[in-house]
Amino acid sequence: MALIVQKFGGTSVGDTDRIRAVANRVVEARKRGDDLVVVVSAMAGETDRLVALANATSPDPDPREFDVLLSTGEQQTIALLAIAIRALGVPARSFTGVQLGMRTDCSHGRARVLSIDASRIRRDLDRGAVVVAAGFQGTDSDGNITTLGRGGSDTSAVALAAALGADVCEIYTDVPGIFTADPNVVANARKLDHIAYDEMLEMASLGAKVLQLRSVSLGKQYGVRIHVRSTFEREEGTWVIPEEEVMERPVVSGVTYNRNEAKVTISGVRDTPGAAARIFRPLSEGGVVVDVIVQNVSEDGRTDVTFTVPRPDLGRALEIAEAVAAELGAPRVSSDESIAKVSVVGLGMREHAGVASRMFSALAEEGVNIQMISTSEIKVSVVIEERYTELACRALHDAFELGEERTASEEQGLPAK
Amino acid sequence: MALIVQKFGGTSVGDTDRIRAVANRVVEARKRGDDLVVVVSAMAGETDRLVALANATSPDPDPREFDVLLSTGEQQTIALLAIAIRALGVPARSFTGVQLGMRTDCSHGRARVLSIDASRIRRDLDRGAVVVAAGFQGTDSDGNITTLGRGGSDTSAVALAAALGADVCEIYTDVPGIFTADPNVVANARKLDHIAYDEMLEMASLGAKVLQLRSVSLGKQYGVRIHVRSTFEREEGTWVIPEEEVMERPVVSGVTYNRNEAKVTISGVRDTPGAAARIFRPLSEGGVVVDVIVQNVSEDGRTDVTFTVPRPDLGRALEIAEAVAAELGAPRVSSDESIAKVSVVGLGMREHAGVASRMFSALAEEGVNIQMISTSEIKVSVVIEERYTELACRALHDAFELGEERTASEEQGLPAK
Repeated sequence: MALIVQKFGGTSVGDTDRIRAVANRVVEARKRGDDLVVVVSAMAGETDRLVALANATSPDPDPREFDVLLSTGEQQTIALLAIAIRALGVPARSFTGVQLGMRTDCSHGRARVLSIDASRIRRDLDRGAVVVAAGFQGTDSDGNITTLGRGGSDTSAVALAAALGADVCEIYTDVPGIFTADPNVVANARKLDHIAYDEMLEMASLGAKVLQLRSVSLGKQYGVRIHVRSTFEREEGTWVIPEEEVMERPVVSGVTYNRNEAKVTISGVRDTPGAAARIFRPLSEGGVVVDVIVQNVSEDGRTDVTFTVPRPDLGRALEIAEAVAAELGAPRVSSDESIAKVSVVGLGMREHAGVASRMFSALAEEGVNIQMISTSEIKVSVVIEERYTELACRALHDAFELGEERTASEEQGLPAK
Repeated sequence: MALIVQKFGGTSVGDTDRIRAVANRVVEARKRGDDLVVVVSAMAGETDRLVALANATSPDPDPREFDVLLSTGEQQTIALLAIAIRALGVPARSFTGVQLGMRTDCSHGRARVLSIDASRIRRDLDRGAVVVAAGFQGTDSDGNITTLGRGGSDTSAVALAAALGADVCEIYTDVPGIFTADPNVVANARKLDHIAYDEMLEMASLGAKVLQLRSVSLGKQYGVRIHVRSTFEREEGTWVIPEEEVMERPVVSGVTYNRNEAKVTISGVRDTPGAAARIFRPLSEGGVVVDVIVQNVSEDGRTDVTFTVPRPDLGRALEIAEAVAAELGAPRVSSDESIAKVSVVGLGMREHAGVASRMFSALAEEGVNIQMISTSEIKVSVVIEERYTELACRALHDAFELGEERTASEEQGLPAK
């Protein structure tokens, strides 16, 4: 008999029909004899409705009250799901963030989980009830309602799994698992059976769509086995697990891309100690998260500094960069929004040399020019022109042999049987 | 500097425009220097939406979970109103039922308030904040969310006023106050300036539309001065206050009617000790609330017993009555749904004889036949044919001189100036 935490997102509980479908699935699992904690998000669309109400009330809603408002979304879902499970004859009991004992700090809208008092949940599990828990929400030491921020329900689920020592945390979503690349871009992308926490973290742009990254860090910290799988299908999905349990270790596990960045270049910066700090401190203080940074070799005591920022922050980043450039006597600031970052990720890189050069060759063969390069222990990223994104992904996916083996008929462009 | 509890119902907070209008009104009062606790209901329509979701999920939703669901309605309103008040530059803080320390018993859907821990509210009041409190909801000793039943926000407001020793509990509603009769039926009905708790309780059918009766009992118990007034106008409404503070004491304060009852007659009951108990015990056990009861003088050892019940319960009442009639050897059970109960209510009756006879004469003059009579210390009720309801109300309103003094032009049917 296992203890399983299951998490269903907003689409999976989007209306009362779907809530009843989830109840059926929960009851099936319960009847196999497992203890169940089911974590749910707000019904799809409900959070948007609440945000619109807040914005219609004030252009700048108070963060504490905004959390009081938003947390009603999950509270509705837990009640409805508990009603649906009980209607199937299985005892179930809903828990709000407060009732879960989900203690957080008091950063409204992006609170961090501090601790969970699992005693009340355990009491109900011991009585044979399914525990239906509100994701996304908690309470600070003063009894105020807090929310964990976007995708916070994944974090709630993993935190509960850690606190309860659950055998697995199942994240139900509308895709079958984590793929070697975006299947919309790379036709023969393959579902991964296993992936290590660190790989998942590096595959941000692929992974963030199905699994909130903060929950992966938490999973890594507490060794929670996370199983990402489809709400609508029965097959196994992808297990996100400790590195030592990942048996197969290809050099590269996946190819990801990010089209949501822009590039800023400050040209002719005098190459003196402290110049970089004078550029990046004000950006950080201005709340701009800088991703890739490249500084050219100095010529005549001057250098170009290039960095990428999230596109929505480009305006702010440029303002700051221009002020800094003026201070530093750098003659020019330029920017480019039509870029993409493409990365290859894999644990195997640690043991295999030559990943970067194989990557650069594959891109060169397709005539894709590389603008910036950035590497970490298990990832190589390049910044390229945006219009080459799909081409680059497909070329890299093939170069590292990530795809499904294709059948003869597919090779010939015939319809699959 | 006074401490005022204000309660705004669902219509008053029906959309974000109205919530901002309420915020303006609250801020005005705050700027006059008063301490404010504002109790709100769910936005009009929201509770119905939630009930529909529950019913779409199960035909018989679990009561505990139903309360978890419904309580989100008020939680949304408190957040939005606190946001709106803060947007006007006045500190405000929302409190859910749990945060209010509103302890109730565990009767989901109709919980009774046991106690309020006002310390947290006081702390915020002392800091100068407006406290925005969720009506209708509380928490039992085990931390479960409970709701107080229909109109429960009035009860929350009066209970908070009692716990805090507030100077007044203002109930804002969409009518200007309590009237001597239903203004839709009696054109010259007059707004009462004051009314005693007991009169208010007896004026059920008039009063229940604007003020939940349970809250009046609570107000009486703790001596809370309740001021029923319009959300949309500035004039004073009606004060519901202790009897000793009501200065003017007309013999009759108001005329009320109730068209929601039906009459059942069991004919030819053998007039033996215990017969009445054998009729009314099974009705009570069957959950039927009997209102007026009349038993005729016995003839030949047999009597007719007539009583009224709420119309929706008539079917159940007849089933029970027929079973009992068979047991008692009573030959016939009949019923009539086209009846109405009309009452005159007034503290002054205690000191003035002749109210009943004046009432019967006024009805006789209009040719209205009286089917049943029932009296209490401050009320006389008659059951009549339903079609005479309006006629009877107008006749009694005139007979007891309750109306506004009409101007000469109105007397002549001319349009008012």
